[in-house]
Formats: sequence, C-alpha cells, structure tokens
Amino acid sequence: MIGIAVVGYGYWGPNLVRNIAEIPDARVVYVCDLAKERLANVKLRYPAIEITDDFEEILRDPRVDAVAIATPVSTHFPLAMKAMMAGKHVFVEKPMASTAEEARRMVEEAARRKLVLAVDHTFVHTGAVRKMREIVENGLGEIYYYDSVRVNLGLFQHDVSVIWDLAVHDLSIMDYVLPEKPVAVSATGMSHVAGEPENIAYLTLFFESKLIAHIHVNWLAPVKVRRTLVGGSGKMIVYDDLEASEKIKVYDKGITLNGNPQKNGEKVYQMLVGYRTGDMYAPQLDMTEALGRELRQFVECIDTNGQPIADGQAGLRVVRILEAATQSLAQRGRVIELEQQRRIA
Amino acid sequence: MIGIAVVGYGYWGPNLVRNIAEIPDARVVYVCDLAKERLANVKLRYPAIEITDDFEEILRDPRVDAVAIATPVSTHFPLAMKAMMAGKHVFVEKPMASTAEEARRMVEEAARRKLVLAVDHTFVHTGAVRKMREIVENGLGEIYYYDSVRVNLGLFQHDVSVIWDLAVHDLSIMDYVLPEKPVAVSATGMSHVAGEPENIAYLTLFFESKLIAHIHVNWLAPVKVRRTLVGGSGKMIVYDDLEASEKIKVYDKGITLNGNPQKNGEKVYQMLVGYRTGDMYAPQLDMTEALGRELRQFVECIDTNGQPIADGQAGLRVVRILEAATQSLAQRGRVIELEQQRRIA
Amino acid sequence: MIGIAVVGYGYWGPNLVRNIAEIPDARVVYVCDLAKERLANVKLRYPAIEITDDFEEILRDPRVDAVAIATPVSTHFPLAMKAMMAGKHVFVEKPMASTAEEARRMVEEAARRKLVLAVDHTFVHTGAVRKMREIVENGLGEIYYYDSVRVNLGLFQHDVSVIWDLAVHDLSIMDYVLPEKPVAVSATGMSHVAGEPENIAYLTLFFESKLIAHIHVNWLAPVKVRRTLVGGSGKMIVYDDLEASEKIKVYDKGITLNGNPQKNGEKVYQMLVGYRTGDMYAPQLDMTEALGRELRQFVECIDTNGQPIADGQAGLRVVRILEAATQSLAQRGRVIELEQQRRIA
Amino acid sequence: MIGIAVVGYGYWGPNLVRNIAEIPDARVVYVCDLAKERLANVKLRYPAIEITDDFEEILRDPRVDAVAIATPVSTHFPLAMKAMMAGKHVFVEKPMASTAEEARRMVEEAARRKLVLAVDHTFVHTGAVRKMREIVENGLGEIYYYDSVRVNLGLFQHDVSVIWDLAVHDLSIMDYVLPEKPVAVSATGMSHVAGEPENIAYLTLFFESKLIAHIHVNWLAPVKVRRTLVGGSGKMIVYDDLEASEKIKVYDKGITLNGNPQKNGEKVYQMLVGYRTGDMYAPQLDMTEALGRELRQFVECIDTNGQPIADGQAGLRVVRILEAATQSLAQRGRVIELEQQRRIA
Repeated sequence: MIGIAVVGYGYWGPNLVRNIAEIPDARVVYVCDLAKERLANVKLRYPAIEITDDFEEILRDPRVDAVAIATPVSTHFPLAMKAMMAGKHVFVEKPMASTAEEARRMVEEAARRKLVLAVDHTFVHTGAVRKMREIVENGLGEIYYYDSVRVNLGLFQHDVSVIWDLAVHDLSIMDYVLPEKPVAVSATGMSHVAGEPENIAYLTLFFESKLIAHIHVNWLAPVKVRRTLVGGSGKMIVYDDLEASEKIKVYDKGITLNGNPQKNGEKVYQMLVGYRTGDMYAPQLDMTEALGRELRQFVECIDTNGQPIADGQAGLRVVRILEAATQSLAQRGRVIELEQQRRIA
Repeated sequence: MIGIAVVGYGYWGPNLVRNIAEIPDARVVYVCDLAKERLANVKLRYPAIEITDDFEEILRDPRVDAVAIATPVSTHFPLAMKAMMAGKHVFVEKPMASTAEEARRMVEEAARRKLVLAVDHTFVHTGAVRKMREIVENGLGEIYYYDSVRVNLGLFQHDVSVIWDLAVHDLSIMDYVLPEKPVAVSATGMSHVAGEPENIAYLTLFFESKLIAHIHVNWLAPVKVRRTLVGGSGKMIVYDDLEASEKIKVYDKGITLNGNPQKNGEKVYQMLVGYRTGDMYAPQLDMTEALGRELRQFVECIDTNGQPIADGQAGLRVVRILEAATQSLAQRGRVIELEQQRRIA
Repeated sequence: MIGIAVVGYGYWGPNLVRNIAEIPDARVVYVCDLAKERLANVKLRYPAIEITDDFEEILRDPRVDAVAIATPVSTHFPLAMKAMMAGKHVFVEKPMASTAEEARRMVEEAARRKLVLAVDHTFVHTGAVRKMREIVENGLGEIYYYDSVRVNLGLFQHDVSVIWDLAVHDLSIMDYVLPEKPVAVSATGMSHVAGEPENIAYLTLFFESKLIAHIHVNWLAPVKVRRTLVGGSGKMIVYDDLEASEKIKVYDKGITLNGNPQKNGEKVYQMLVGYRTGDMYAPQLDMTEALGRELRQFVECIDTNGQPIADGQAGLRVVRILEAATQSLAQRGRVIELEQQRRIA
Repeated sequence: MIGIAVVGYGYWGPNLVRNIAEIPDARVVYVCDLAKERLANVKLRYPAIEITDDFEEILRDPRVDAVAIATPVSTHFPLAMKAMMAGKHVFVEKPMASTAEEARRMVEEAARRKLVLAVDHTFVHTGAVRKMREIVENGLGEIYYYDSVRVNLGLFQHDVSVIWDLAVHDLSIMDYVLPEKPVAVSATGMSHVAGEPENIAYLTLFFESKLIAHIHVNWLAPVKVRRTLVGGSGKMIVYDDLEASEKIKVYDKGITLNGNPQKNGEKVYQMLVGYRTGDMYAPQLDMTEALGRELRQFVECIDTNGQPIADGQAGLRVVRILEAATQSLAQRGRVIELEQQRRIA
C-alpha cells in the first residue's frame, strides 16, 4: 500500500484525490493546502483523509511514500526538491518547473536518490494519444510534419503565457508520439492585455531531419479547436480531441515521388510528384480516464522501481522548449537552438 | 465596348473568357496562347474570338483596349510591361510578379501612362470577404489577430513555393480586410521533396499596433481546411470558405478588461480579465461569382478612369510580403522588416 | 424548509439528491431503495441523509413534505398514489405512468388534495428548449412542422419500447414548445430482438391545423443524433442538442406565397411559391443545469401553491400519446385519434 | 455507333447531351424540345446536332437508335411508348411514369420488342451507392433498417408531391442496395400551400423479414440533409452525400444477443443484449460522374443486348411504391400492401 500526500487542492488536486482513491494499492494519507476552506471540503467528502496546511508535516510522516504536487508552477521546484530530499517519490503537475535549470536539478535529484519522478503529462495516457503513437510507429513512414491547434476563449493566466499553459500539452504529446526530438525553436506571439503575458502564440520546431512541427495556441478564439495533423510519407493522421468518439482518423493519403524525373526546360509544370488517396479509418479507442491510468502507473513504478512514461527527462525536455520558445518570442521569432541548451545542461 | 485580349488559356484563362463574354460592355477580341490545342479549343467553343500565338499581334491591334494575363508568374512582368508600353490596360493574375522590384516598376508604368492595372485578387470580390471587411470596419473594435489556415492535398508547384501559391490568397484578403498594413514578417517552412520549393509554411506578420497575423499553408494535408479567425475587442469572426452557406460567423465574444486592477501578491490567479459571450450570427452573403464581378469592375475602371479594388499597389504590397517571407523562411524565421523594404522601393 | 424523500437510487436518483442538496429551502430527508448497496453509497456520500428500504416509513414521517420518485415506470403509479394519499407532494420521473388511465387518476388525486404533482420533463427546463419556445411564440409565424431525430446505440430496455424511453423526451418538449396539441398519431416501428419491445420507431402526429410532427427514435444507430427542425412561415429553427454551444440556430428562411396566382394550363411549372433566405443566428443560451432549475421550481410551487411547468396534465398528455402510438405501432401505422381518447378520459 | 435523340432540353437534358457527347460509341443525332430558345441554345453549343420540335420526325429517322426522355413525368409514358413502337430503345428520366399501370405497360412493350428500357436512377451509378451495395452484400449481416433523410429548401413542384420528386431517389437506391423488396407502405405528410401537392412526407416500408425502411423528404427545411443509415447485425453504414469525400462510413458497431437468457422476475433491467463497438472506416470511392457511367452502360446494353442495372422492372417497382405511398398518405398512414398490387399487375 503506497501512501500519497496530495499538495494543492485547487482546480486539479480534487481529480488526483478522486483517482488515487480508486487505486487498490494506494491511498491518500494527506491533502495539504494553504486555504482552510479547501481543506474543509476535503474533510467533508473524504473523512478518512488527514488535512494539513503544513508541508513539513507531510515530509516527516513515514506513512507518506509519495507526494503529488498540484500547486502553481513557480512552487513545483522547491516543493518537489524538499519532498525528494525527504525520500519521497514525486508526481508533479506540468509544466514540471519554471526553468530548465530547475527541471534539470529535479531530474538529477531523483536519479541520485533512486526516486520515481513522474510529470503529469495527462494526454499521453489517453487512448487517442497512445493510438497515435502506435500508428506513428507502425505505418506513418517518414514523418513530414506535426501541426497542432489548441485555441479557445480560455482563462487568461497571469503568471505564465499561453505557451506555458496550452502549448505544454502539445509539446508533451509530441515528445511522446514522435521518434525525434526538436533541435531548434522559433516562436512568435502577442499580448493583448498591457502588462500581461502573451495570450496568442505560434511555435515552429525544427528537427535534424526534414520533420517540422508547429503549434498554435490562443486564449482569445471564438471557437474551441483541438486539432493535430501528422503527415507522413505512408499515412496521415488527424487527431481531433473534440470529436466524441472518432478522435483519431488515419488517412491513406499522400504523395509518391517519381524516382528520377528528367528536368525538361520546356515543360514548366512537369510533375515528379504523384498523389495517392485511399481509405480512411478511425480506430476504436480505449476510453479509460487518462489520469487514473497515469496514477496507477506511478504507483506501479514505485512498487517495481519502474520508469514512468512521462518521467523527469520528458518533463525537462518540454520545459527546455518552453523556455527557448519564450526567448524566441521576445525576439520576434529568432530561432533558438535546443542542441546548444542541451550541452549547457 | 472594351476589347480585351486574354493571354494564357491554361487553368484560369477559360474562366476569364467565359466571364468577359457575359459583360455587356466588353468582348474578348483575342485569345493568345503558345499551345495550338488550346487555341483550337477556343475556336470550337467561341467561333467569334480570334486566336493567335503571337503576343505582338495583340499589341498592334487597336481593337484591343486591355490585356488579361493568365500565364505563369515569371512571365507576368515582361508581358504586362509590353502591354502597357503599347498603351493597353492590364488585368494580371496573382501574384502580380516574381519580385517586388518588378511589381514596383509595373505600378510606376501604369501610373505614368494613366492605365488601369488590376491584379486578380479574386477572393476580395466574394460576398464572404466583402462582408468580412464590412464587419471589421463596423464592429470588430480593436483588432487583435488575423489567423488563417489554407491546407489540403494540393498540386505541388515546381516553380513557386506554397507561399506564392496559397498564402498569396490570404495576403490579398488581409490587405483588403484589415485597416493596417504589416511592418515585418517571420516565416518558417519545409520542403519534403528534394530540390523542390517549400510545400508547408507558416507566416507571422507583425504590425505597428498589437495586431498579429498568421498564415498556415500546406500542400500535403489529409483534409482540406480554409478557415480564418479574426479576433477583435468587440466581436470575432470565423470565415470558413468550405461551408456551403454560412461562410461567415460573427461571435459576440471576447474579453473585457477591468480598468485599474490592484496587484495583490497573495492572490496568484487574480483576474483583471472578464469574459463576454453572446449571440452568434451568420449574415446572408452575396453569392455572385467573384470573377465576373471583378472583371465588370475592371471594365468600368477603364471606362471611368477609376481605381480597381485590387490595384497594382495592392498587388505590390502582397508581393513584397511574399518576397520577405521567402527570405525569412530561408533563415528559419528571422524577422524581415517590411518598412525597410518599402524605403528601398 | 421543504423536506424531500428520494425514492429510487439507481441511475437518476443520485442526480436528484445532488441537486436538491444545493437548494437552500429544501433538504433530502430520506433516500429509499430496495438495494442495500445503494443505500450504503448514500450514507458514504451524504452522512446526514437517512436511508430506508421501507417506503411506508417515509409516508409516516411528518418531516417529509414531498416525494421524488425515480423508480421503474411500472411503479410510478402505486408509489405516487400512496404518497399523495399520505398528503405528500410528488415529483415523478417521466414517463409519468404506464397508462393514460393511471396518469389521469394521478392528476385527479393531486387536484383533489391540492398537492403539487410535477413530472420530470427535464428538457423543458434547459436553456435551449426555453429559447426555442420563446422563438416559436415570437417569430415563427404559422408553424408548418416539427421534426425530431433521437437515435444512438443505446441501452435496450426490456420493460418499455424505444418510444417510451426516447420519444417521451420529444413529446414532452413538443408539448411545451408548440401552441397546439396533436389530435391523432400514426406510428410504425420494429423489434429486432425476439420477444423484446420495439427498438426503432417512427411517429407522425397530426394536428387540427396543417402542422405535422414526426419523431424518429432508434436504439440501434451507429451515430448519435439529437436534432429537431421546426419550420414556420416566418422563421425556421434547428435545435441540435449535441452542439457544444450553438444548440439553437434560427434561420430567416422560408417560402413566400404569391397572393393570387393565375392557374395557367400551358405552363407546367408555374410558380406561386417564392423563396426567402436571410441571416442565421444562434442565440446565447442559459447553461444552468436543467434539473436543478426544475427542482427549485418544484420546491417553489410547494411553497407558493404554484403550478409546475411540467405538471400532471402535461405528463398525462405525453402518456396518452405514448399509449396511442403503441397501439398504432401494433397495427403498422393505423392512425389513432387522440381526441376520442380525451373524451373517454 | 449508336444514334440517340434527346427529348426535352430543360434542366436535365443538357446533362444528357454533354455526357453522350463524350461516349466514343454514341452520338446525339437530335435534340427535340417545344421551346425554340432552348433549341437555339443547343445549336450554339453543338452545331453538329440537329434540332427539332417534332417528336415524330425523330421516330421516322433511321439514324436514331434510341431516345432519351427528359420531359415532365406525365409525358414519359406516351413518348416512351411511341418510341418503342417505332423500334427505338428508351432511356427515361425517373420516375419512369405517372402510374404503375403505365410503367407496367412500358416494361411489357420493351420485353415484347426486345428493346432496352433504362430508367435514369442516377444515384445507383455513383461510387458511393455502389460501394454501399457491396458492403451490404458482404458484411452487413442481417439487415435491420434503412433510414434516409433528404430535405432542403427546395423547389416546390406543382405537378408532383415531394414523394415523387425526392423520395424517388431513396426508393431507387434502396431497390438497388437491399436484397429484399418491400411488401407494404405507410406514408404520412402534409401540404402547406393550398391546392398544391404535399411538400413534406414520411414513408415507412415493411418487408417480409424484420427489416424496416423509412424515408423523410421535405422541401421546406432550413438546412440541407442527405443522409442514410443502414443498420445490420454485422455492421452499420452512414451514407452522407454532402460529405466532400467520406460519403460512406462503415461502423463496426451493433448489438450481440445472448443465446438463452434466463428470464428473472426480480431483475427489471436484465440484459440479454450486449453492445459491440469497433473501428470505423470510410472506403475510397470512385468519383466518376454517375450519369456518364450510366449512359455508357445504356449504349453497351444496346450493343450487346444487355440488361441495364436500373431497367424497366426497377423503374416499375419504384413507381409502385410511389403510387402506394400516395394512397397511404391520403389516408393518414393507412398501410397499403404492395404484394397485392404486384398480383394485380
């Protein structure tokens, strides 16, 4: 039985508690929050869970094996570090930290102490994203592009830009789905509220191969869109998260390149590209709640000394891109190399 | 009665002929093309139209008041210049020219000779785009962003990139719809066929105000998308050109800014942004064929010494951006100032 | 403070308890169910609510002012009658009873004892349906038709046909939205599982005017559809309950009749019908949870001796149609008069 | 070389001429119409085609092997009969005739004279409908239902009701796609313009098996819908003719019946029905123009003494149902047996 303390009972914390409560091998020992009303709510719904506003109390309690952190981003690093120093495993909300340097130190700490460090990249545990990865691995051929749009009339955040709030989802999905990691980023965007972070942004990610990725995030759109296109030489995918059941559509479409076309000055529109169109199919998806699956896996990793799918390294890779994109955005799209960063790290 | 010679009878030329044939005050005197089969086709369908493969013949003929040029982009400049030098008015396909320098010289020539120079920015003559401009003028408030996606499994061009082929539409629409002109551009993209121009591209356009524009074009998408979002402080527009009838939807949605919020260190998520949601409406649109409307206007401008909606200046502005975007794309998104270009020009 | 006992804690009962719990002037005194596990669940989540498997205990308890019945249809009549005989107000699930005769007796009992008898026609409390009624009243003109489709791969019921399970929703919405009541019904359908009730059915409802209504229900459809068209001489409505936000669309479309067309034997296709097309708009809707609104109204009616929107008479009208439709269905569409029934009743 | 005379050059005639003109083994000898302007149009576009307003002239001309009739429904019978009596093969628009008796006599005449009698059920030649038939044959299992909706703000006809104008399409598709023929029909509907035929109608078709079919047609709908659901024990199909490319979607969904469920009085909702959900796929479709395909087949049948897919028998079956539906409609849905009719015929 793994004892877990949930820290932060705002928007996401209740989901953590509800899902951990359903795992046979785990239990929520504490909920920790600074707001008394929230703690009162916990007591009302879960009389057996202890409540506290003292993080240190949790760290001292030997019944606590792991800490699940669902607090504002800026507190992830200090809380996670303290928890690991006290020997606790850590499950932390995304983005994992405010800077790549923080994220790197968290990864090192977990490695040094052989603790499980999982980052809550929830989407990679959905049936849709897992299916997408499966298709990318087995039939997409050479991958040409990854294009994602995540826009709606959303809650403006005051501490982080739309990149850290929305693009983090796309970056974590990409990190899981694509076999390659980006080497550079160019980002543009704008803040429409004086003194506040960007509410609209566009990221282009470059890779060593010809793969190109692009993410469009916007808190100020009249319609909600959650749509990703992945184009490959073999097949193409449309992932629309707002579809009730057919979230993933796989198209047997693309171009075929003619081996050795003769350049012929006379024909202006000579074609070396052919077009292929075929069936489309929408595979059935596992509709299990992603967060439950993810937390069960976290518990299992603690039990078996395993590696979570979204571990600290994945979290670090995502934060690195967020950081570089933020730099690029401040310079109207100047490309920022991620390789270089990696070396520094 | 305005006599017109149509030069180039490939994909678009037949549409020009068909539409001019329906204008009471105009007639097609010649069709000129280098391909004999095409000319034979003209004769079959329009026995009264003269055919020729000799451009000079047209220029010498006093019955020809104007020349409509529907040939490959690289030939627009020489053909248009010769025509104007022979005193003919010009209607030219978009993009107007291969370089901003060419376009600038065409504009100057037309001005010097007081000839009508119209660029075939067809979309600005559709009911949908005209309605969009009307809404932008009358109720959008401060304009925050313009975001367009134009993707499909399209014909790969060999002489121009996807920017010159598809983004040109968005740039011409933007030029017509927005009250401001861009001052800089950052573009990224990729070619997936060795030795060929880019088949996927992303453009960000910067303005003096906080307006930001973005265009996504792709020849290699599994689904066809033609969708533009325009966000303003007053209203927001979704323009979906693939909708059969409700192409323009206007949303009474947005944010409201609270005048003078007190920064309060304790509340992390303190809100100075409010959200407003209201009705949506889809105005009825004029469904007249845009090209017919445009050509009637061209004839009218010749008759009345008027200025076409998409004149040489508009064509030049679009080519300037295409050129700058191409430069930026080659440098992975390095921002290219359009102001500077304008000065050089 | 109105004390309410919720009877039946299966699929819908928990929603009743949760919503009543949020009404300041009401409280759930008891939950009554025959299944011990369900009662245990109540205790776990709502320690303050008393649990019992003895319906009589509820009736004896003076703290219970009203009974909310969420049990199988066949038990609605005996439970509601007993409750009213014990002086309790009644809120009963739809369909209100198994037969029109039962429903009629329930209405009479409530009238005799001056008790509130509300039927849970939840949809009439949604923002969408209330808006639809408002539009029908204020601008639809003469109403031509009401057409509804409610299909999906749904749970096959074993005690009632798809008409009693799904069409009941459409009939209750129609009863609320339309100014006229139907006078006859013709229904067809089929059972595809031997010995089980019909899983697909089509109902046509006739009115004294030229209004015609049709309902299509199906438990065996590959896609989920919830779409109603209402056509009038002034405007037309599309109500799509699966749309996230634009559930109601109002079209300024229709035909215009030319006053006094001359019949002319020579012209076969002579037109006395003109077509009108105009704007479409999607009004903003109140998104409050319908059930909460409905239960607050029930409590208010008890307090103020008021009449619920969906009272026993509405419930009876719906059951009458269900009963007549079932008769018609058994005779492959033979029309059944509702007038006649009404007289018998 | 088969010589064809096209009779009637209104809405559909030009399509016949255009398509026949592209068949290598056929040519249009005449176009016949009573309106001089229409004939002038023919001459303008097709100088080689002879024009006439005298149907008898066509019949006398030995160069004419076949007559294609695209005139109002009421004239199909006399024109086709005269043509066949003159030894000409016949291609006739749908519906084939005004009454089943007329259609029967046409079929007899064609049989007696060994002439090809083809009915223009265009849809059965589309890639979508042919694919649908293929799927029905190979994998739908037992067919449960066929449900079609064909509504829009359409042209009100003055000589025929919406059944003869729109449902005729669904009936011809059904006739081609389903292995069984209907045995009875119940129809309801309404006319909203005094003195004019019904503009909205609902047809239910019964079969010997448990298959049930339903068709909804409406000239007065605010939105255009062309959607057919076909449900079988093995798979289910959605055919949406307004989809640009994915017109046919095949769902691996349905119910599974448990062999020998024990009826158990205690459990009200005991389940003998299980649910199966799987992948969906949208097969690639042949996008060839249906009418061209159909006319090529007609010419081929003349050459080879073959049988067209939609022959006189198919046309007769459809007219029989239209006639019975019209009778049923006049009696508010009274079921009309088709078997009985067939015997009379």
